[in-house]
Amino acid sequence: MSKLLNRVVDELGKLPSIGDRSALRLALHILSQQPSDVERLTEAISSFRRDVRYCKYCNNISDSDICPICTDNSRDREIICVVENIKDVISIESTGQYRGLYHVLGGVISPLRGISPSSLKIDLLQENIIRNSTKEVILALNTSVEGETTIFFINRKLTHLNIKVSNLARGIGFEDNLEQADELTLSHAINFRTIIK
Amino acid sequence: MSKLLNRVVDELGKLPSIGDRSALRLALHILSQQPSDVERLTEAISSFRRDVRYCKYCNNISDSDICPICTDNSRDREIICVVENIKDVISIESTGQYRGLYHVLGGVISPLRGISPSSLKIDLLQENIIRNSTKEVILALNTSVEGETTIFFINRKLTHLNIKVSNLARGIGFEDNLEQADELTLSHAINFRTIIK
Repeated sequence: MSKLLNRVVDELGKLPSIGDRSALRLALHILSQQPSDVERLTEAISSFRRDVRYCKYCNNISDSDICPICTDNSRDREIICVVENIKDVISIESTGQYRGLYHVLGGVISPLRGISPSSLKIDLLQENIIRNSTKEVILALNTSVEGETTIFFINRKLTHLNIKVSNLARGIGFEDNLEQADELTLSHAINFRTIIK
Repeated sequence: MSKLLNRVVDELGKLPSIGDRSALRLALHILSQQPSDVERLTEAISSFRRDVRYCKYCNNISDSDICPICTDNSRDREIICVVENIKDVISIESTGQYRGLYHVLGGVISPLRGISPSSLKIDLLQENIIRNSTKEVILALNTSVEGETTIFFINRKLTHLNIKVSNLARGIGFEDNLEQADELTLSHAINFRTIIK
């Protein structure tokens, strides 16, 4: 009907979890907005992609060379939490429970997706451990095959360093039901039960 | 954490049915795309908002002064289907059952939302009826209070013209269950039942 409409619906439909119907709804919403509001949206997207940088220490996204977490002197430099991606940093930060530094791998080892150990900034992690005299590294990765492979690999890379290496606690989530827990989680939760009396 | 990230999450979160989590997911997806792909997205959004026009006859969106439906000589000019918005045109076109023209009101009368009869291009509809020697107008509006008010209003505006005015058939949808139908629909479906034998 309108090439301009078709084009914007096509482009919006390429975004994850936005189907054709949602793309059309978004396009018609955009049409109903002030031009200045639409410009603010497109400029935010463009400048984010164009100007965002990665912290030269922890590989987290940042507006400058070093991210606010790495420059924050109140953070505990003796502990580094290794995560797969930026979303994990945001999740852990939102708990307010962690005061150490991060290391963002930018992925996990996955031969199928062409992600090799060399693309994961593991050398950078070793440099950071030495510079910060780190005492503990938390490997906060998912328990997928790729996650476990990556944990194994990083662990081996760190054996020559005199540091503690830890994993996240595994078990039943506070809002999960037992019947929904997978067998591995439930077995683990029974074997590593906590004594309360 | 990153002002650029916060800004893009804010802006994406203003879009309908995109919450904070989805906005973050979209932002990180955008970060993983090639700059040229992101530019294609933002340019499609910008040019859609900036360059789209409205057909001077039917008020449908168009890339030029007159939309492809109004210029299509194979369409039946004796019938005009009046709809609330562009989405309705797309829905009806997708059935492939309708070969007449459209008239897009751009809304329905709604004092609460500040939409008065004068903002609905009803004069334009009258002009179109006269120019096309229209024989029938289908009022394909929703059965909301606003929709019914608008139907009443347009009907009155058209009384002096010698044309047929029709509504959409109401009843149970082909994929709907009786138990899910509202009382009004079900009453109507019984009262206006179709004799099959």
